[in-house]
Amino acid sequence: MKNFTSNNPTKLFFGKGVVSKLGSFSKKLGKKAIIMIGKGSVKHNGILDAVTKQLISVGTEYVLFEGIKSNPIFQDVDACVSIAREFQADQIIAIGGGSVIDSAKAVAVGFFHDGTVWDICSGGIKAKEALPILCVLTLAATGTEMNMFSVIQNDETGQKLGWGSDLVYPKVSFLDPEFTFSVPKTYTSYGVSDLIAHTFEQYFEPTSSPLSDHLATDIIKLAFEYGKQVIDNPNDYEARSNILWLATVALNGSLSAGKQGGDWGVHGFEHSLSVLYDIPHGAGLSIIYPAWMKNYFLEIESKLDFMAQRVLGEGKKAQDFIAAYESFSKSIDSPTRLAHVDIKADQVDKIVENLITNKVSGAFFEQNEETYHKMLGLMW
Amino acid sequence: MKNFTSNNPTKLFFGKGVVSKLGSFSKKLGKKAIIMIGKGSVKHNGILDAVTKQLISVGTEYVLFEGIKSNPIFQDVDACVSIAREFQADQIIAIGGGSVIDSAKAVAVGFFHDGTVWDICSGGIKAKEALPILCVLTLAATGTEMNMFSVIQNDETGQKLGWGSDLVYPKVSFLDPEFTFSVPKTYTSYGVSDLIAHTFEQYFEPTSSPLSDHLATDIIKLAFEYGKQVIDNPNDYEARSNILWLATVALNGSLSAGKQGGDWGVHGFEHSLSVLYDIPHGAGLSIIYPAWMKNYFLEIESKLDFMAQRVLGEGKKAQDFIAAYESFSKSIDSPTRLAHVDIKADQVDKIVENLITNKVSGAFFEQNEETYHKMLGLMW
Repeated sequence: MKNFTSNNPTKLFFGKGVVSKLGSFSKKLGKKAIIMIGKGSVKHNGILDAVTKQLISVGTEYVLFEGIKSNPIFQDVDACVSIAREFQADQIIAIGGGSVIDSAKAVAVGFFHDGTVWDICSGGIKAKEALPILCVLTLAATGTEMNMFSVIQNDETGQKLGWGSDLVYPKVSFLDPEFTFSVPKTYTSYGVSDLIAHTFEQYFEPTSSPLSDHLATDIIKLAFEYGKQVIDNPNDYEARSNILWLATVALNGSLSAGKQGGDWGVHGFEHSLSVLYDIPHGAGLSIIYPAWMKNYFLEIESKLDFMAQRVLGEGKKAQDFIAAYESFSKSIDSPTRLAHVDIKADQVDKIVENLITNKVSGAFFEQNEETYHKMLGLMW
Repeated sequence: MKNFTSNNPTKLFFGKGVVSKLGSFSKKLGKKAIIMIGKGSVKHNGILDAVTKQLISVGTEYVLFEGIKSNPIFQDVDACVSIAREFQADQIIAIGGGSVIDSAKAVAVGFFHDGTVWDICSGGIKAKEALPILCVLTLAATGTEMNMFSVIQNDETGQKLGWGSDLVYPKVSFLDPEFTFSVPKTYTSYGVSDLIAHTFEQYFEPTSSPLSDHLATDIIKLAFEYGKQVIDNPNDYEARSNILWLATVALNGSLSAGKQGGDWGVHGFEHSLSVLYDIPHGAGLSIIYPAWMKNYFLEIESKLDFMAQRVLGEGKKAQDFIAAYESFSKSIDSPTRLAHVDIKADQVDKIVENLITNKVSGAFFEQNEETYHKMLGLMW
């Protein structure tokens, strides 16, 4: 096992009705909240009302910032920072999935930074202070509700970049599985693909760490099982609960104990697809991962074998696992080929150019022009 | 899945040489540390020196409190509180295993309480404030290095009681697997038995929570594998690392997600044995658990089946698991019968009397005079 640090200061309440605790935490943080939401579905399904009712009950004033996009852009973050400053917000309440919470993290640090938040998201400047964040999660996917990471996009430069700061761990996150009942099948499916990818990223790095590696196989096994169930029965509380918790654990540090931080090559690769074609992150991941596994097969064969054994049963092998994974993605309508998201073969050069410009980082298994081409060749 | 809260504020550094970070954390907490240790082995194996060197380097003054017993008593805690007050300590550094760290937690709250710390440990008074604690762990066993629990004994009343407070999560814990190389075989073995018991306690409660339950089977599988290795090769870094991390995860909240807090009946039962015969906690647990499983077999059969399947392989059943568990305990010389720790059959009434007086609490599967007798009958 490699040396590691285990630390996660986020307090997480999970289960039915947990948002009833939000008011007391808001009150501890101050008196003025900026609420951030996405396209507005939470205005119609009662979730926003449940939150504002909490704020009113403890006398927290609030202002609403609406319209965070699925692939969130830094301009929206900058706009929200201005409003938060004008309102003199002392806390952020993010209601939504990864894009809203990731944007909230950027607003939290942007609030104390002169200039655009892109300075921080692009790694040029280190965050020094942050507003506290409360999260009300509405989508099982990215794990951002219990970690220090965020991904923000810059359409002007064609970049989608991950950044992190231990200042932006949410103070408290509220995860009510019922709040995910109304997520459409497509986004439910992409969320499952995303949590599976996070697990792969940490599992397949060259280091072994027995407990983390076993846990990774558990997450995949259960994601296959409950991932199908949430698609078939969107209002199944047990299935939604399991997927919600799996997504959190997949990226809250549990899988990285004794390891080296993961191989984030596929994530980086996907950011190029999202930035070029505005496809959902999870959709891109379920296309790239099978290709990545085939391309690096020899390097990861023993890990694929172990995954096959633990997920599919004794005697199963690496190839069986890749086949099962592709077949699972198809069963939940998550794409496995670029054609499924209408990206044509004539786009190869454009994608490779973006990949070269943004050079995929954080990969143990080297990616370069040759591997980009090889992997893209496996995606049609 | 049941509603639950996930929260663990302890920062944990794991791996070779991590104690080199202790100085900087001590400095943040103040200038005066009380160091608590057990019987003194850390004075001879270099661990105490490594810590004091850190303190000297940052100008932290310190005083040493020595002699915490394996089954720690409240009188030692009270004595340490007096010294800490006189010294005006602003932090506690616990170097040792569960008994030292549990005592440090009691000192932390006792420091701010007028009267004996037993008032707090026995649940009569709630802790309101606590000194911060840094832990240097030297024994893989109780998980206290990353939780809010502590167990303290009162020989006068014949009680050994668990208590907890979210004020006593260690601020930072340092886990260097090499610091456990010199632990004698007996205590290494009891530590493994203890971590296995913690896993059982959370696994066998009547609720199911898929990810927590899968993780529990991983911990048992790896404890069997690496538990044997640490006994056979005490200086094997990988084996010691694995056991050390398994013991932390077994009681840091990871196994309780979506569950109801565990069935602590066996733990309570063991406290009576420890208090009456001063046997190590882990030794008592590996005697009681097989009897408990046999006594509640019908209630837990499906969970035993699943454990058997995941730990021993497809097709294995509940009975196979109990047999494998007993055989594993024997292989590491952890006792499985009362006779192995020289408790004779004529002690039954005395044990039952203590169990009745201290009524085992926190058990989903009811324990009463009849079950005490039945279970004791299975321990010879």
